[in-house]
Amino acid sequence: QLLEALQTTGVNGPLAGLHILLTAGPTREPIDPVRYLSNRSSGRMGFALAAAARRAGAQVTLVHGPVTIPIPAGIEAVAVETAQQMHTAVMSRVSSADVFIATAAVADYRPESPASEKIKKQSEHLQLELARTSDILAEVAALPRRPFVVGFAAETQQVKQHALAKLESKQLDMIAANDVSAGQGFDQEDNALQVFWPGGEHMLPRQSKHQLAEALLQLVAERVKQK
Amino acid sequence: QLLEALQTTGVNGPLAGLHILLTAGPTREPIDPVRYLSNRSSGRMGFALAAAARRAGAQVTLVHGPVTIPIPAGIEAVAVETAQQMHTAVMSRVSSADVFIATAAVADYRPESPASEKIKKQSEHLQLELARTSDILAEVAALPRRPFVVGFAAETQQVKQHALAKLESKQLDMIAANDVSAGQGFDQEDNALQVFWPGGEHMLPRQSKHQLAEALLQLVAERVKQK
Repeated sequence: QLLEALQTTGVNGPLAGLHILLTAGPTREPIDPVRYLSNRSSGRMGFALAAAARRAGAQVTLVHGPVTIPIPAGIEAVAVETAQQMHTAVMSRVSSADVFIATAAVADYRPESPASEKIKKQSEHLQLELARTSDILAEVAALPRRPFVVGFAAETQQVKQHALAKLESKQLDMIAANDVSAGQGFDQEDNALQVFWPGGEHMLPRQSKHQLAEALLQLVAERVKQK
Repeated sequence: QLLEALQTTGVNGPLAGLHILLTAGPTREPIDPVRYLSNRSSGRMGFALAAAARRAGAQVTLVHGPVTIPIPAGIEAVAVETAQQMHTAVMSRVSSADVFIATAAVADYRPESPASEKIKKQSEHLQLELARTSDILAEVAALPRRPFVVGFAAETQQVKQHALAKLESKQLDMIAANDVSAGQGFDQEDNALQVFWPGGEHMLPRQSKHQLAEALLQLVAERVKQK
């Protein structure tokens, strides 16, 4: 039983001794008490990475938006709803993290002035005023003492080009890009990832998100050691 | 076993011989391939009503938006995503329905021109142009040969006043109103309903959505008989 416990908690795993902070799932940005803006992220990739990181011996903190999948055993889970709440939860925990993996599909825009009462429908047309949210990934990457920072890019076109631009502009250590067009990626059980880092890349072919999580963490472990 | 089958399918139940068409859950209105507008409806009230109607002997058709709860046994379920899809699914099935119960939280507005590719974030501010969706409940109530029409009103203030206004303006046979402020109603296991019809009303106190469903169907059965 002790041996089993050691194996399952992975104290000798490739990520033993590291604190990994992840974000996962969508955020919800309130329009009024019942309506919101969101996106199709299921959280599965982030949850699979959290579980795999735990199995590989890491201490894992998972900040996640509204999802319908179970929390992996043995990790610290922090449930949030909005991009602002996710920002607060991440920034208050990042100083102790060795690796930050941002899989969450954080809303880029939120309604500028959410209504405190349900908005009654009136005219045929309506303009919803949106304002940018904080860029959690860029803020973490810009910290003076920062963890190893891994971003995700969900794109529907020019996947590699957008991923490389994001790697460069946000000064990430690694980016994992996937094509979410035509029903791939979001809300699917399996996925493929193109992984880029400054001076290198690796293609992870289509497989279950659990297998993909292990393969991606393998790349992370190798790159963290080389830094 | 035959007796059990008769009891569970309710061939002698209070709604035996009636076809009940229900809508449930939220709708999702695409902004682009990954982002959408939606609302906090869990679908639980509509699903509880569908199950209770089946137990009471009705033939049940349930048109539902994206939900995470299981489909009750013995009913015809039609999964849709947008308000437009829900409209089409309802209008093509309503002619055979004796009772229409609209519990779905159908989006009142949808993005006017959904983008076919993921919108890249750019400026600090953005205006999202919205257009009204079809009013499924009002259209069904306005049919020359219409079923008994039950609406729902989820309100955060002046619940009775808004419910009576909706009963009158849409010429419904019945309306069930609930207060969704302060965490009540939406996405909760239990709820309370104020039920109104032309010339009458009944308060259903806070209880599980399954008990509430049976009590509401009892009121519907009484009123259908009197029509």
